[in-house]
Amino acid sequence: MQRYFSNQLDNNKLILSSDDWYHIKTVMRMNNHDQIEVVYDTEVYLCEIDNQDIKIINKLEKKIDNNKKIILVIPLLRENKMDLVLQKATELGVNTIIPIKTERSIVQIDKDKENKKIIRWTRICKEASEQSHRTDIPIVTEIKNLNSLENIDGLKIVCSTREDKVSLKKILTKHENYDRIIIVIGPEGGLSNDEENYLIKIGFNPVTLGNRIMRVETVPIFLLSVLNYEYME
Amino acid sequence: MQRYFSNQLDNNKLILSSDDWYHIKTVMRMNNHDQIEVVYDTEVYLCEIDNQDIKIINKLEKKIDNNKKIILVIPLLRENKMDLVLQKATELGVNTIIPIKTERSIVQIDKDKENKKIIRWTRICKEASEQSHRTDIPIVTEIKNLNSLENIDGLKIVCSTREDKVSLKKILTKHENYDRIIIVIGPEGGLSNDEENYLIKIGFNPVTLGNRIMRVETVPIFLLSVLNYEYME
Repeated sequence: MQRYFSNQLDNNKLILSSDDWYHIKTVMRMNNHDQIEVVYDTEVYLCEIDNQDIKIINKLEKKIDNNKKIILVIPLLRENKMDLVLQKATELGVNTIIPIKTERSIVQIDKDKENKKIIRWTRICKEASEQSHRTDIPIVTEIKNLNSLENIDGLKIVCSTREDKVSLKKILTKHENYDRIIIVIGPEGGLSNDEENYLIKIGFNPVTLGNRIMRVETVPIFLLSVLNYEYME
Repeated sequence: MQRYFSNQLDNNKLILSSDDWYHIKTVMRMNNHDQIEVVYDTEVYLCEIDNQDIKIINKLEKKIDNNKKIILVIPLLRENKMDLVLQKATELGVNTIIPIKTERSIVQIDKDKENKKIIRWTRICKEASEQSHRTDIPIVTEIKNLNSLENIDGLKIVCSTREDKVSLKKILTKHENYDRIIIVIGPEGGLSNDEENYLIKIGFNPVTLGNRIMRVETVPIFLLSVLNYEYME
């Protein structure tokens, strides 16, 4: 069933955005009394289209989410690559996405365009959340610097090109008791030595992903796939 | 260093296609005496541009490939999704891609357009092989039916929506001694019951990928990531 997200509950009716109404009426061509699922405050409601309203029929049973929280820290990428990463990371269960500025990022985003970008990125995550039937939408934060990660808590991983790195598998199987994982991915040219040293100093584990040469946008998809697999019941 | 594939060795010179020459001259803007790597018959040669020729300087040391062979059987997908799967599967080490017709495939390809499609798909794999510095190009076969898989040998996996399926992790950790893995992925609507029953009858293990709802093009990327991770040294 088609799923939408709502921010507002009003007298047994859930309020949807005009974009969602456009999708319901024009893209899906739904009619009066057709049913949809609407997520409000991480609860899923079975609803019915009732003229201009979305009427709640009943609340659906909640699936317990025992998953670890995943925070993905990614460099600024060209638009089509960024879109792919946001969509796939959402499908694969990411909780927070932190775009970061790095020394070797090719893509720059001006401060005055940043807000518009974050709105766009959040919309992509919302649509992917609907498609993959999530009950939450990943949070895309403002664009940050690496030193904003200084006080973050959890299992901290940075994808590294160093010699003395260990394999991802060793790190994940050694540290199973964390309920939060933070992963930093470098830009196309990699993180600089200074950046990597800084991350190691604040507690990040440098890991290797094996011998394959992957495009930068493949790395987060690879990592999230592996996390899903490793912590699968 | 930029890498190309050649099919022809002639008097210490490697012959490249006109597309490759276009890439060298116009895209990369390389000049006489610039160096490139050229793969010929799975060997990598350091070469130099010598006017209209590619002159071999020396053969580079070969990396031993102990990896398991991976055969990916995928439904026909819309062009942009197919392209993404071919590119990412190549980056993640696939050896053979078999496009199949299934009952619920939405995309149909006429027999007279099939050859053109396979040439296009092979080109995408070649370009991704160059980018990810592989020494071979995945083989894209003609479009087949499921019953062409009857006599295939190896660890056989089909992504399933059945109740009695087991987790991918159980299958992979139980069957580590195979040197070839065949994975069948269904189309957007899933394989039909008849198709899945047939595959199980010929030895395929139905597996679940967990609770996430992924788009069909995400599934092969997920699976290949997991195989890389599971068999990582």
